[in-house]
Amino acid sequence: MMQGAYSPGTHVILDFWDAVGLADFSFIASAMRDAARACSATVLDIRLHQFGGEGGVTGVALLAESHISIHTWPEMGYAALDVFMCGACDAQKAIEPLTHAFKPARHNITILTRGDV
Amino acid sequence: MMQGAYSPGTHVILDFWDAVGLADFSFIASAMRDAARACSATVLDIRLHQFGGEGGVTGVALLAESHISIHTWPEMGYAALDVFMCGACDAQKAIEPLTHAFKPARHNITILTRGDV
Repeated sequence: MMQGAYSPGTHVILDFWDAVGLADFSFIASAMRDAARACSATVLDIRLHQFGGEGGVTGVALLAESHISIHTWPEMGYAALDVFMCGACDAQKAIEPLTHAFKPARHNITILTRGDV
Repeated sequence: MMQGAYSPGTHVILDFWDAVGLADFSFIASAMRDAARACSATVLDIRLHQFGGEGGVTGVALLAESHISIHTWPEMGYAALDVFMCGACDAQKAIEPLTHAFKPARHNITILTRGDV
């Protein structure tokens, strides 16, 4: 991770219900890139896997500042996401673009501080 | 994700302090595989990035049952991990192999239930 300075991170855990786009591979990749951009994070790699033609998607964006993950159950309209960022990036800035993209009728957000000594 | 059945998941958040092996790329990959195996999870892909020669590692194991992530700060002895698994796999079974591998002098573990309706 970032060298020369110790930076605790913020970990945002998002549960989305009755959300849209959960079987749309390219939509999900785009939403993850938009969320990373909103946090001024650097995307190292995005890896997505889809289960069957219209099945759920599991994936992660690896960031220089940690990661964004998503796992979707389109048959239930449910998605589990988490956004972990360290350093100067603020993971909470991902909340708005992600909720805007997936438009959950209901959501739950948990914010954890990581790495406190 | 898994089709035909809705399975809430368990998300285990691990903070390790004064841990070992945090700049050892192959050791970390092996520890992630061991943790996935302990949970009877199927590894789809492991992606790791290292920052500089002996720098921190950021990485994720994508699983058919969700993911394991790790971000290390070897200069501080600190690692942030999370293990999210759905379906029949129990993410809590990753705790013992991960603590055994990284031998943190101190750790904090938070267990979240995801996807409850």
